[in-house]
Amino acid sequence: MKTYQEMSKEELQATYAELQKQFEEEKAKGLQLDMSRGKPCSEQLDTVMPMMDVLTSKDLLQSEDGYDCRNYGTLYGIMEARQLIGDMIGAKAEQVIVMGNASLNIMFDTVERSMTQGVCGGIPWARLDRVKFLCPAPGYDRHFKICQYFGIEMITIPMHEDGPDMDLVEKYVSSDPAVKGIWCVPKYSNPQGYTYSDETVRRFANLKPAAGDFRIYWDNAYCIHDLYEDRSDSLLNILTECEKAGNPNLVFEFCSTSKISFAGAGIAAVATSKENLEWIRQGMTIQTIGYDKINQLRHVKYYKNIDGIKEQMKKHAASMRPKFEAVKEVLERELAPLGIGTWTNPNGGYFISFESLPGCAKKIVAKCKEAGVILTDAGATFPYGVDPMDTNIRIAPSYPTAEEMAQATDLFVLCVKLVSVEKLLKKAMAA
Amino acid sequence: MKTYQEMSKEELQATYAELQKQFEEEKAKGLQLDMSRGKPCSEQLDTVMPMMDVLTSKDLLQSEDGYDCRNYGTLYGIMEARQLIGDMIGAKAEQVIVMGNASLNIMFDTVERSMTQGVCGGIPWARLDRVKFLCPAPGYDRHFKICQYFGIEMITIPMHEDGPDMDLVEKYVSSDPAVKGIWCVPKYSNPQGYTYSDETVRRFANLKPAAGDFRIYWDNAYCIHDLYEDRSDSLLNILTECEKAGNPNLVFEFCSTSKISFAGAGIAAVATSKENLEWIRQGMTIQTIGYDKINQLRHVKYYKNIDGIKEQMKKHAASMRPKFEAVKEVLERELAPLGIGTWTNPNGGYFISFESLPGCAKKIVAKCKEAGVILTDAGATFPYGVDPMDTNIRIAPSYPTAEEMAQATDLFVLCVKLVSVEKLLKKAMAA
Repeated sequence: MKTYQEMSKEELQATYAELQKQFEEEKAKGLQLDMSRGKPCSEQLDTVMPMMDVLTSKDLLQSEDGYDCRNYGTLYGIMEARQLIGDMIGAKAEQVIVMGNASLNIMFDTVERSMTQGVCGGIPWARLDRVKFLCPAPGYDRHFKICQYFGIEMITIPMHEDGPDMDLVEKYVSSDPAVKGIWCVPKYSNPQGYTYSDETVRRFANLKPAAGDFRIYWDNAYCIHDLYEDRSDSLLNILTECEKAGNPNLVFEFCSTSKISFAGAGIAAVATSKENLEWIRQGMTIQTIGYDKINQLRHVKYYKNIDGIKEQMKKHAASMRPKFEAVKEVLERELAPLGIGTWTNPNGGYFISFESLPGCAKKIVAKCKEAGVILTDAGATFPYGVDPMDTNIRIAPSYPTAEEMAQATDLFVLCVKLVSVEKLLKKAMAA
Repeated sequence: MKTYQEMSKEELQATYAELQKQFEEEKAKGLQLDMSRGKPCSEQLDTVMPMMDVLTSKDLLQSEDGYDCRNYGTLYGIMEARQLIGDMIGAKAEQVIVMGNASLNIMFDTVERSMTQGVCGGIPWARLDRVKFLCPAPGYDRHFKICQYFGIEMITIPMHEDGPDMDLVEKYVSSDPAVKGIWCVPKYSNPQGYTYSDETVRRFANLKPAAGDFRIYWDNAYCIHDLYEDRSDSLLNILTECEKAGNPNLVFEFCSTSKISFAGAGIAAVATSKENLEWIRQGMTIQTIGYDKINQLRHVKYYKNIDGIKEQMKKHAASMRPKFEAVKEVLERELAPLGIGTWTNPNGGYFISFESLPGCAKKIVAKCKEAGVILTDAGATFPYGVDPMDTNIRIAPSYPTAEEMAQATDLFVLCVKLVSVEKLLKKAMAA
């Protein structure tokens, strides 16, 4: 079989006509499928339902140290929840503050606090002429939007299989005092599913920032989100590495149970050094009287300990795996021989990242939408929503069923073919 | 019986010696009582426990419009929760956004958004040389701390029984474009328990601000928190009055169920105009993917409607009333004849406000602490923590039992007497 690049103009024209016909047929089916967001499906949420029964009116609703979880107070969260989350990400309970239901909110508030108050006694970023964040890309669109919202300049850092381009990271961080932060999804990265290598983590821990208030935003959203029982990535502990390197204040680590318990009603946390925690506390004590401790208690009673969480994750993996496999099967079968795209093959997380021929991603996403399949907007995985090569597409297999994913991916590959042929044909006509 | 002011130097000296003796005896008892914060007691929280049973693993956890409350999404909160809160404060469901567990957090975020983004297209306050808030005082310390945190200048406005001094409010608001907001607890105000008169509310609704981005922060924390069945205050609806006055964007109204359901695990909301809501949405969509909708559903299933909330509040009133009565009984019996203090007699809310002789509040609070009774810091009810006359003390009867409150108030009046005599004696000696 010829790749599209090897085809003559006539062959491309014939292929294009055939694909056009197929597309019209598909469009007529009136599909309505959404693979745009990393949203758990109902089946996955169903496996968490017993959590709804662990606290009843017969229970005391007290923390282990006797605190009434129904009342105000306990700003850092109850100790047993801090322990549970700490065990999940490899932090000591004392390093962890458990807050509300969304780690995104904690990240937002951390940037906000830096803007209006300054970091640990530093100048408020709002008073500086320029504040910059490094943004490994493709990355998580909501990270980038926080920067945009606060007027923080974003510098794109290429992502490799072992993490961000560390030569570039080190160069920027050590030379430019306006560089105040970097967004990282270090394990099963969004959208590629890459996990930072030990060397990458160590280089992060040993950064020598020009800015004393530079911080790593370590969004460990997929810390235990393995897809397979026989293979999984492991990530070095950034908190420990930073301590070893004598840089304990360098990192804020964020996580949540949004993709472990309930996406809308989990618990979220930040883990960091004593000094950073104290800075966070100073803001929190003005912002709130405390977060929902009953929900914290509910999580502890249900999971009991880290093994309980791991058991839950096996159920989630069982639900997610067939969807990832369905996508990869179609991509492999339909696209591998044609040379018009590559994709990642992650061991965990929520996404598969697809790379089209240059200049095709936007058109592919638009074509899919035309036939009823919604993908994340092309460009969303880059700062300012602009993918310079227009190649990256994020595929989120979590929400639809495996069959729907196969169906949606069938349409997706058809659109990839169509847009790619169109592009090659234009080139051939121009030649 | 003579008032202390009528006593001769010798009588004051004898009284002082006697009070000193009593104080030492009381101190020896080693009391440990906290009447510093507006915290519900366990008994009150117990009445809410059936709420823990309304959602189980057998329930669908869907909103009325079929939305899965376990999942991400629905930024404004589920419609039935918006309706419930709307009915509580007299707003249309569409005017309400239900968020997390703390209205303080919503107020903080609203000021923060104004600081970094500007209000509805206005200049971000952080870029202005001066931003000022009017602060009716005595008032709620946490409001004032938000201003202090963001470097907002506070202007004290005297509080009267019918609300803030509106002549002064109108003068500042209409003449100074740096005045961007005012903190109000319009019903059963913190700490005096005053309710704004209809005229006051109308004058608020008809303000003509010099600043287009001036907003009223209407913290309706005690909207249905009546203490007595036979008498209660009523508050005019500020949202409606603002609409009538052609000023729909003038007010943000805040409320929560913290003192209705669980103090640490309730639901909180903001109600305002369409334009203001859209401004809030623009920030929220960056800050979070959505708040805990399961807890919203739990509240709706438990209370069903506004009548359910009213029933709950009767139980709370039954628990609170004897505590308020205990305090007032002791104050009336021990202090009324002596002319060394006045206090409020609210129909609802969480506090009694006490006014000592000038220059005595700090010393009274310190004396109480010395003997084991913790009161809110003197001064806390004023901007910057400074009560210019040093007279105001906030008494929070909600947490201890009625007996403990009687005990604590016994000690309190002893300290009031002691500090007052000391002051009068000094004056007599100097004369």
